[in-house]
Amino acid sequence: MTDLSAVKAALKAQEIETPSWGYGNSGTRFKVFAQEGVPRDPYEKIEDAAQVHAATGVAPRVSLHIPWDRVDDFAALAAFARERGLQVGAVNSNTFQDDDFRLGSVAHADPKVRRKAVEHLLECVDIMDATGSRDLKLWFADGTNYPGQDDITGRQDRLAEALAEVYARLGDEQRMILEYKLFEPAFYHTDVPDWGTSYAHCLKLGPKAKVVVDTGHHAPGTNIEFIVAFLLREDRLGAFDFNSRFYADDDLMVGSADPFQLFRILHEVAKNDGFAPGRQVAFMLDQCHNIEGKIPAVIRSVMNVQEATAKALLVDLDALRSAQSAGDVLGANAVLMDAYNTDVRPLLREVREEQGLDPDPLAAYRATGWQQRIVADRVGGTQAGWGA
Amino acid sequence: MTDLSAVKAALKAQEIETPSWGYGNSGTRFKVFAQEGVPRDPYEKIEDAAQVHAATGVAPRVSLHIPWDRVDDFAALAAFARERGLQVGAVNSNTFQDDDFRLGSVAHADPKVRRKAVEHLLECVDIMDATGSRDLKLWFADGTNYPGQDDITGRQDRLAEALAEVYARLGDEQRMILEYKLFEPAFYHTDVPDWGTSYAHCLKLGPKAKVVVDTGHHAPGTNIEFIVAFLLREDRLGAFDFNSRFYADDDLMVGSADPFQLFRILHEVAKNDGFAPGRQVAFMLDQCHNIEGKIPAVIRSVMNVQEATAKALLVDLDALRSAQSAGDVLGANAVLMDAYNTDVRPLLREVREEQGLDPDPLAAYRATGWQQRIVADRVGGTQAGWGA
Amino acid sequence: MTDLSAVKAALKAQEIETPSWGYGNSGTRFKVFAQEGVPRDPYEKIEDAAQVHAATGVAPRVSLHIPWDRVDDFAALAAFARERGLQVGAVNSNTFQDDDFRLGSVAHADPKVRRKAVEHLLECVDIMDATGSRDLKLWFADGTNYPGQDDITGRQDRLAEALAEVYARLGDEQRMILEYKLFEPAFYHTDVPDWGTSYAHCLKLGPKAKVVVDTGHHAPGTNIEFIVAFLLREDRLGAFDFNSRFYADDDLMVGSADPFQLFRILHEVAKNDGFAPGRQVAFMLDQCHNIEGKIPAVIRSVMNVQEATAKALLVDLDALRSAQSAGDVLGANAVLMDAYNTDVRPLLREVREEQGLDPDPLAAYRATGWQQRIVADRVGGTQAGWGA
Amino acid sequence: MTDLSAVKAALKAQEIETPSWGYGNSGTRFKVFAQEGVPRDPYEKIEDAAQVHAATGVAPRVSLHIPWDRVDDFAALAAFARERGLQVGAVNSNTFQDDDFRLGSVAHADPKVRRKAVEHLLECVDIMDATGSRDLKLWFADGTNYPGQDDITGRQDRLAEALAEVYARLGDEQRMILEYKLFEPAFYHTDVPDWGTSYAHCLKLGPKAKVVVDTGHHAPGTNIEFIVAFLLREDRLGAFDFNSRFYADDDLMVGSADPFQLFRILHEVAKNDGFAPGRQVAFMLDQCHNIEGKIPAVIRSVMNVQEATAKALLVDLDALRSAQSAGDVLGANAVLMDAYNTDVRPLLREVREEQGLDPDPLAAYRATGWQQRIVADRVGGTQAGWGA
Repeated sequence: MTDLSAVKAALKAQEIETPSWGYGNSGTRFKVFAQEGVPRDPYEKIEDAAQVHAATGVAPRVSLHIPWDRVDDFAALAAFARERGLQVGAVNSNTFQDDDFRLGSVAHADPKVRRKAVEHLLECVDIMDATGSRDLKLWFADGTNYPGQDDITGRQDRLAEALAEVYARLGDEQRMILEYKLFEPAFYHTDVPDWGTSYAHCLKLGPKAKVVVDTGHHAPGTNIEFIVAFLLREDRLGAFDFNSRFYADDDLMVGSADPFQLFRILHEVAKNDGFAPGRQVAFMLDQCHNIEGKIPAVIRSVMNVQEATAKALLVDLDALRSAQSAGDVLGANAVLMDAYNTDVRPLLREVREEQGLDPDPLAAYRATGWQQRIVADRVGGTQAGWGA
Repeated sequence: MTDLSAVKAALKAQEIETPSWGYGNSGTRFKVFAQEGVPRDPYEKIEDAAQVHAATGVAPRVSLHIPWDRVDDFAALAAFARERGLQVGAVNSNTFQDDDFRLGSVAHADPKVRRKAVEHLLECVDIMDATGSRDLKLWFADGTNYPGQDDITGRQDRLAEALAEVYARLGDEQRMILEYKLFEPAFYHTDVPDWGTSYAHCLKLGPKAKVVVDTGHHAPGTNIEFIVAFLLREDRLGAFDFNSRFYADDDLMVGSADPFQLFRILHEVAKNDGFAPGRQVAFMLDQCHNIEGKIPAVIRSVMNVQEATAKALLVDLDALRSAQSAGDVLGANAVLMDAYNTDVRPLLREVREEQGLDPDPLAAYRATGWQQRIVADRVGGTQAGWGA
Repeated sequence: MTDLSAVKAALKAQEIETPSWGYGNSGTRFKVFAQEGVPRDPYEKIEDAAQVHAATGVAPRVSLHIPWDRVDDFAALAAFARERGLQVGAVNSNTFQDDDFRLGSVAHADPKVRRKAVEHLLECVDIMDATGSRDLKLWFADGTNYPGQDDITGRQDRLAEALAEVYARLGDEQRMILEYKLFEPAFYHTDVPDWGTSYAHCLKLGPKAKVVVDTGHHAPGTNIEFIVAFLLREDRLGAFDFNSRFYADDDLMVGSADPFQLFRILHEVAKNDGFAPGRQVAFMLDQCHNIEGKIPAVIRSVMNVQEATAKALLVDLDALRSAQSAGDVLGANAVLMDAYNTDVRPLLREVREEQGLDPDPLAAYRATGWQQRIVADRVGGTQAGWGA
Repeated sequence: MTDLSAVKAALKAQEIETPSWGYGNSGTRFKVFAQEGVPRDPYEKIEDAAQVHAATGVAPRVSLHIPWDRVDDFAALAAFARERGLQVGAVNSNTFQDDDFRLGSVAHADPKVRRKAVEHLLECVDIMDATGSRDLKLWFADGTNYPGQDDITGRQDRLAEALAEVYARLGDEQRMILEYKLFEPAFYHTDVPDWGTSYAHCLKLGPKAKVVVDTGHHAPGTNIEFIVAFLLREDRLGAFDFNSRFYADDDLMVGSADPFQLFRILHEVAKNDGFAPGRQVAFMLDQCHNIEGKIPAVIRSVMNVQEATAKALLVDLDALRSAQSAGDVLGANAVLMDAYNTDVRPLLREVREEQGLDPDPLAAYRATGWQQRIVADRVGGTQAGWGA
C-alpha cells in the first residue's frame, strides 16, 4: 500500500524549473508568430516565471540562456528573482547563433572558433558565480550536414578538450550538465547524439559532470525510461529537459504527446530514488510555445509533470516487486497501470489547498489579471525570442 | 542489353527544375547563416538559376514562390527568364507566413482566414497566366500541434472546398499539384500528411490534379519508390520535390543522404515510362543550402539527379524481367545492382561534351567567375530568404 | 455536458471481436513458448472466447483464421459458437504459409501460384457462407525482400485482378476488408503497405470493400487517428485490428504501449459516429500473447478498449467544438485531456453491474476455475499455434 | 592521392567471418521456407563456409552458435574446419530458446534461471578453449514486453553480475564481445538496447570486453558510423555483425539496403585504423537468407563488404582532411563521394586474379557444382535451422 501522506509530502517538495525562453516568442523555420504581452527583457521573463510559481507553488527556479538573457548586472538580476521568490537555475550556453559558429563551436576545425566558444562557456560560469546558479547546461549544435564534411573523431578530440577546460573552471558546488541530441540543427551527425556519448565524456571529466535527458531528443522507438534508470543507477543523471514531441524535437508541452511515457519515466525516477534532494536531479522544462499562450502553457506543463509524478508516486512498489519476482507479467503490469489510470487531479487539488494555493492553477493565474496587464503594458521595445 | 544511345538521348532530354528559394538564405529555427552574394530580388535569383542551366544544360526551369518572388510585372519577370534561356516553372503558394495563418489557412476554422488563403491561391493562378507557368504547387502548413486543437474531419471539409474553388479556376493546360508532408510546422497532425490523402483529394478534383512526392516528407521506413510506382500506375504523379534527409525534412542536397534510394526511385520512373514528356512528371529540386555554397550546391544536386537517372536508365530491363519471372531473387537484385554500381560519371561527361557543354559543370561554373562577381556586386539591399 | 446515460448505453452496446489465434501459442522467430491449457482445435478456441465474452459481456464474436481453424463442418462450428453465445466474426485468409507462397501469393509472378491463392480466398467466402460471417479479412504477406526482386507495378496489376475476382464472389451482405502493413514478413516492399494503397483498391472494387486499420502496422510517427478520421469521412473504414507496439508489429495488448493514442483513435470514432451500427465498423483484436496468460490477456485487452471508449465518449463535444471554433488551442486540448484524465473504471464497473456482470472481469474469470480446468484437461494432442 | 598497391594489399588481407546459421534454414515468425541442400549438422555448415572461402579468398573464419552447433567433440570440429582452410571464429551463446528463458536469462528474476544461463556461457568458453576461438559473442534476448513487467535496474544488477563471472573465466587471449539490440524479441525494453549500455558494462569488466555493432540493431535515424568512430576512438569496438535492414532487424544481405551507409561505416574504420590487425576488430556477417539461395547470398554479402571496403580505402584522406580543415563543405563531401561513386568491381577482379582466384566468385561457386551436389546428397535427416 502506498502511503498517501508521503506522496503528498513529495508532491509539495517537488521543484520544477521553467526556462526563460519559454516566455518569449518562438516558432519554426517557417514562421515565428509573435504574441502580445511577451517580455522584452530578462526581468520581464522573470516576472512571468514568478507568476507560474505563484500559481503552482512548485516552480521556484528559472533557467537563463546566454546571450538571450544577458544583462549588465547578473547579481542584480538574481536579486530581482529572489525578491519574487525565485532562484536562478541552470545557465544555458549558446554556441550556435554567432556567425562564426556556422560549422560548429567547441568541435570546430578552427582553433580560433573553438577559443571563442570556450570563452563563452567560461563566461557562463562567471554568470553562475554571480547569480548563484549551480548548473552549467551545455547543449552543442555542433555536427555536420554532409558525410565527409568534417572528421568525427577529430571533433570528439576537440570537444573533449573544450569540456575539460571548462570543467576545471567549475566551483566545488557547481556542475556541468551535458545534453545530447539526435539531430538538428546538424543533420548528418551531431557531436553528442546520444546518452552514451554524453555519459562517456562525463565519466572522463569527473563527478561534477552529469547527463541531461531531453525527452524530445531521441530516435523513434527509444526507451527513454531505460536511459533514465540506467543513469540513476550510475549516478550520472543530472537533469531533465521536459517537453513533448510526436515526431521530432517539437517542443510541445510536456505530457501532451505521450502522458504514459512521462509517467513511466517518472516511475523510474521514483523507484530509483531520483526525487531525493541528494540525488540532485534537476527537473527542468525546455519547451517553446509557438501557437499557444505562453504563461498558461507553462502552468499546464508544470501541472502535467505534477500529475505524472503523483501517479508515479502512487505505484504500489511492494505489490509491483512481488508480482515481478513471481514472474506475473499481467499482474506486474496491472500494478503499474492501476497507478496510471488513477485520476490524481483531486489529490493535487488537495495538496495545493494544503499549501495555501488555489486548487486550480490556471484559474488562479487568470484571476490575477496578469495577462491583461502585460498585454497592455508591454508595448514597444523588442519582444524576446530566440534571437534576443 | 541497354541501348546506350537511347540512354544518352534520354539524359540530354532530361529537365530538372530548380527553386528560386534555393538561391537565397535559409537555415533552421536556430539560425540563418547569411552568405555573401545572395540575390536580393527575383531577378537576381533567375540570374543564378541561369548559371546552373548554363553549367549543366538540363535546368531550364525555375520555380517561383509567392510572395517571396512577388514583382510588379510578372510577364516582365518571365521575359527576363526567357532571355536567359529559362522558363518559369511551378508557382508555389505560401499560406504559412501571414500572421492570420497561425492556426492554418485553407483549413482554418475561421471563414475569413480561409477566404484570404483562397484569394492568395487564386492570385497564384493569375501569376501562372502571366508567366506561362503550368503548375500550381500547393503545400499547406495546415495542421495542429495538440490533440483536440481542431477537428480533423472538419478541416478536411474546408480543405476540399478550397481546393475545388481553385481547381475550377485553372486553365485547360494548367495543373494543380498537391504536396503532402508528414509533419512540420504542424506537429500533431498535418492536413495532408501522406500520399493517400493527396491522392484522394486529387481523384475528386479531376484529371488536372496530381500528387507531388517530396522525398523528404515521409515517415522513417517508408518505401518512397513504391509510392512513385503506384502513382505512375494511376497516372497521378505530378512532380517530385527532390532533396535529402537523414532524419527529418532536412532539405539536404538530393542524393547526398541515400543515393541508392534516389536510384531506386528513378528506376521506378524509368520502368514505368515516367520520363516520357507525355507523362508530365516535373522533376523539381526543393532544397535549401544552409551552410554550403548555394549555386554550387544546386549544380551538384542537378548532377546527382543526372547520375541516378543514368544508372536507372542503364538497368537491363529485359534481364531484370527475366530474372523476376523466374523467381531468381539474387539474380534480379544483381541486375539492379549492376546498374547502380556502374560509375556513370564518364558517360555523363561524354553526354555533356556531345551537347557542347563542359564535362565538369562545377569547374565550368567556377571558371565563369560568377561567384566572385555576385559577391562583389550584390552588396547592400536585403538578401533574399524565407522571409522575403 | 456529456450525457452519462448515453455513454453507458453506448458502452453496453459495444462489441469487440476476439481472434481465435489469440488463444493459441505464438511467439517470435526466436522462440514460441508453449503454455499449458492452450486449445488443440477451433472448438476449444471458441470455448475460450466464450469465457472472455462471459466475463466482459462485450466480446460476442470470434474471428477465424483459415487454415488454422479449418474443420470438416463449418456450419457445425458456427452452431457450436452460437450455443456459447458467440457469432463467427471475420474469416481471415492465410496466403503466407504454403511453400508455394515463398515469393508471394495473389501478386506472385507465376499464375499457378496466384490461382492457388485465389482459390483459397474463394474457399474463405464459402466458409463465410457456412458460418454466417460477414467479413472476409484479407492481409497479404506479399512483397519483396530486395530491390529489383519483382516488379512493383506488375504486382499491383496481379493483386487488383485477384481482388476483383474474389470481390465478385461476395454475397450482398458480405464485405471484403483489406488490411495494409508497412513491413514484415516482406522487408523491402509490401504490396499493400499503407492505407492509401488499400483505399485505392477498395475504391475500384466497390462499396463492399473497406479498409482495415491495424494499429501496429504503421511507420513511426504516423498519426493513426488521422487515417481513422479520413476513412470514416470517406465511409471506407471497415474494421480495426487492435494491438500495441512500441517499435514494430509487436502484437502486444491493445492500450498497453500508448493508451493515449488508443483514446485519440476512439475519440475520432466517437466524433465521426463510427460506433453507430450502421457504420459497420468492426472492432477486432489482433494480438498474440507470447509470454503472458492468454485468456486473461484477452480480457484485459477488451477492458482496455472499453476504458478508452468510455473516455472517448466522455469528451464534451460541445465544449470542444466551441474551443476549436474560438481558436483556443489550450482550451480545446484541455477539453480532450479532461476526458482522458478521468478514471473511468468506476463507471465501467457500474455498467457491468447494470448488465448483471461481475464488475471485475478478471476476477470473474479467475473465479470460474476455467484456467485450472483447461490446464488439467487439455493434455496431449497438438496445441494450436500459428502453424495449425 | 591514394596508394593503389596499399589498397590492394589491404583488400587481400581482409578477413570476413561468416555465420554457421547463415547456411541453415531461417525465416520469420510467419513461416520458415526450407531449402534443398541445407546442412544437417555443423560439419556440413563448415563445408558450405569453406565453399565461400574458396570462392572469395577472404572468409577464413566461421562463427559457431551453441547449442545449434553442439557436437560431441569440438576439437574434432575445429580440426575438420582447419582441414578446409577455416578457423573457428566467435562462439555465439544462446540464452533465448530454453523454456526456462521465457522471461529472460542472465537478467531473470529467478537465481536458478540465471545460474542456468551463466553455466551455458561458461560452457561456451569451454568450447572456445576446445576450438581455439578467441571471441565469446554475447547477445541477450533479455528484456520485457510490458511496462512494469520487471525492474529495469534490478535486471542491470543481475546482468552485471553474470557478465563479471563469465569475464573472470576468460583466458588471456580470449575476449567477451557484447552485442546490443534496440528491440526484439523483447518488445518494451531490452536489457542491452544500445551501444552506451554495452560500452558501460565493458568499461567495468575490463579491457577484454568490447562492443559488437550489429548494423541492424538501431533505431531509425541512428548514425551508425558515429558509433563506430566513437568506439574505435575508445578502443572498444570488438566486432561488426553485418547485415541490412530497411525497417527492423531484417537480416538482409549486408549492403543491400543502404550501400552508402556501409561505405560510410567502413570509411570510419579505415580512417581510424580499424582494419589494422592489432585493433582486433572482427568483421562478421550476421544474416539469414530466408528466400534466397544461402551460399550464393553469403558470397554476395562478402563481395558487398569487399566493395564497400575498397571504396573506403580509395578515399583520398589527404584531400579530405585538407577540405575539412578549410571548412569546404561541398569539397569535403565531394572527396568522399568520389570514392563512393567509383566502380571498384574491376579493381576487385584484379585483386582476386592476383590472389589466384576467379575474378567472379559467384561464377566460381556455380562452376564447382557444389550446389547440385548438396541438393542431391543432403537428403533425409533434419535440416539445420534456428531450432537445431
